[in-house]
Amino acid sequence: MKVAVAGYSTTKFSLDDIPVESVLLSAAVRLFQSTPNLGQKDVDAVLVSTNENKKYLAAIVSELAGISPKISHSIESLCNSGTNSLVSAYSHIASGLADVALVIGAERFDSPGQVLEWDMTRGEYTHPVFWASMFTKAHKRMFGTTDEDLAYVSAKNHRNAQDNPDAYSPKKYTVDEIMNSKRLTDDLRLLDCSRPCTGGAAVLLASESAAKRFTDSPVWISGIGQRTTSASFAKNSLTTLESTQDAALQALSMAGVTPSQIDVAEIHDAFSVCELMVLEDIGIAKKGTASKYVSDLYNTENKMINPRGGLIGAGHPLGATGVAQVAEIARHLQNNAGSRQIPGASTGLVQNMSAAATSSTVLVLKS
Amino acid sequence: MKVAVAGYSTTKFSLDDIPVESVLLSAAVRLFQSTPNLGQKDVDAVLVSTNENKKYLAAIVSELAGISPKISHSIESLCNSGTNSLVSAYSHIASGLADVALVIGAERFDSPGQVLEWDMTRGEYTHPVFWASMFTKAHKRMFGTTDEDLAYVSAKNHRNAQDNPDAYSPKKYTVDEIMNSKRLTDDLRLLDCSRPCTGGAAVLLASESAAKRFTDSPVWISGIGQRTTSASFAKNSLTTLESTQDAALQALSMAGVTPSQIDVAEIHDAFSVCELMVLEDIGIAKKGTASKYVSDLYNTENKMINPRGGLIGAGHPLGATGVAQVAEIARHLQNNAGSRQIPGASTGLVQNMSAAATSSTVLVLKS
Repeated sequence: MKVAVAGYSTTKFSLDDIPVESVLLSAAVRLFQSTPNLGQKDVDAVLVSTNENKKYLAAIVSELAGISPKISHSIESLCNSGTNSLVSAYSHIASGLADVALVIGAERFDSPGQVLEWDMTRGEYTHPVFWASMFTKAHKRMFGTTDEDLAYVSAKNHRNAQDNPDAYSPKKYTVDEIMNSKRLTDDLRLLDCSRPCTGGAAVLLASESAAKRFTDSPVWISGIGQRTTSASFAKNSLTTLESTQDAALQALSMAGVTPSQIDVAEIHDAFSVCELMVLEDIGIAKKGTASKYVSDLYNTENKMINPRGGLIGAGHPLGATGVAQVAEIARHLQNNAGSRQIPGASTGLVQNMSAAATSSTVLVLKS
Repeated sequence: MKVAVAGYSTTKFSLDDIPVESVLLSAAVRLFQSTPNLGQKDVDAVLVSTNENKKYLAAIVSELAGISPKISHSIESLCNSGTNSLVSAYSHIASGLADVALVIGAERFDSPGQVLEWDMTRGEYTHPVFWASMFTKAHKRMFGTTDEDLAYVSAKNHRNAQDNPDAYSPKKYTVDEIMNSKRLTDDLRLLDCSRPCTGGAAVLLASESAAKRFTDSPVWISGIGQRTTSASFAKNSLTTLESTQDAALQALSMAGVTPSQIDVAEIHDAFSVCELMVLEDIGIAKKGTASKYVSDLYNTENKMINPRGGLIGAGHPLGATGVAQVAEIARHLQNNAGSRQIPGASTGLVQNMSAAATSSTVLVLKS
């Protein structure tokens, strides 16, 4: 059973103080408006990806949008709730229980998913900035990574975000500006961090036969990999994201694709060091070479990694992020990404993770 | 692809003030202890069913239990979170992404899922007792249902719960005691209501080939039905649960079973009137005859409806309820239900719903 991306949308990422129900509805409405022939009766499943505390949001947004789906519930796995929801929607279709599934991710800037309460048991890691700082120090020690190398990630992603009208950040920053932004820890500056924000995204998945009704150019979910580990820093390997490495192996193998065949990728740059680590753990760059890889992308104005600006440039509405990443790759594989289009892209990858890569998802999409 | 129940457990339902993480772990440990040959490495997916506000509980309980699953996330749909999680686990297996999935439901007595904030928009229905009261009044008007009829539901389910050592309620009540319990609304007494409590339940689902490693008598998930509607009382049919009716049609049709073939059923008796309505909407009793059907069960000491005591007798830990219902049916179909065993049961049904039947799940299980 083949499963396709048959529609997608994002809302404007912002710091707006609006109810999460409104964000969910906006993303759904935008998807319906941009997907020809899609009616409310077509939708068999509504899955909501969020870290908000509100209950039965999938039933609520269904009622608001005039949908009476068979399947409806919320899914939470912190920052990779979005891809967990999409894989679940894939399963509901591939198992035959649904033909068409609408996944909507939404979060507010003040989401309760930003505090890692449980990580108190591992020490004082309640804010993700602490594990990111540990990873950064380890990458510097192991590979000689510099503050300038890290700043290139942020400079590139902020610049890419200029072509994304839904991105939160309207500003470009130079490498120097990033290196001189507010110091948060020994190794992290403010502009090394993604910005929690209010935002939504929606993706419509459909079986092969159903997808034909909604699009002439379906994008196929060709590879799926997921892994949950205990915190990576329990393994004495602070420069490897074990769950991402494993998820990437699964997804690339299922899709029959090698890292060099990836034309465009969405990488979970919650912090600048994450983009370097993930590029290395997926195999897009060899271990210890991601810094050079990223500065080369920056200097050649190549947008293939995080074309919409990544989490650093576009903003990070937790539950929406994974959904927005898949929407972005689908745009490129349909040659529908406007001024940020990667020419001729036919194979794309999404990497989405939560809580110091406690859990990772990697997806491979093909046109 | 056939999917089996290959293991199950429940914890003691209580009013204990213990962290939800501990409840989840207890349910998982009990399942591992009672499932031969099951090791942590066998588990591909850990899905947590809960309404608690805590984040990444699936990753946390995985870490506590020594599991590194591929798939892990929380699922919420108020009171039918449990069956939504089980259907999702079914899909992950039937789609080929997982061989073995562990679903764990858990809730605390003070769960935030007990207040229906959104229903403020429909009037003052923030506590479920208000919609239950409307349903009760309508059932009385339409079918002449009496307070005594309602009390039989509660008397039967409390009595059934005496044979369930994990039930919250240790007491039997006479029909008179129930009719004279504290009045909550015009039409509802305290003992017409299920009791929110602390409790957990776990169910292991497995593909046909994997299930053989863990049990000689797998129970098959043979029928699945789900539907989400706007609140039933928007439809001018206060005596029909539209979502349950539709979900039952789907599930019975998928399983090739008629209502008269059901040997044992778990019915979501959040309030006494719900058991009457659901029996009628599934077709186990004809419209307007469920009161007599239930009092006959009571008078003949027939436990086939809600043998573990239902939500009224066993208690209602929201996220655990649907999981515990499936565990109960599996016990009977394996002839493993001890003193409450329904002799020779080979076909069972689970009905689980949320928020005035805004969403319903019906499952048919076969030995």
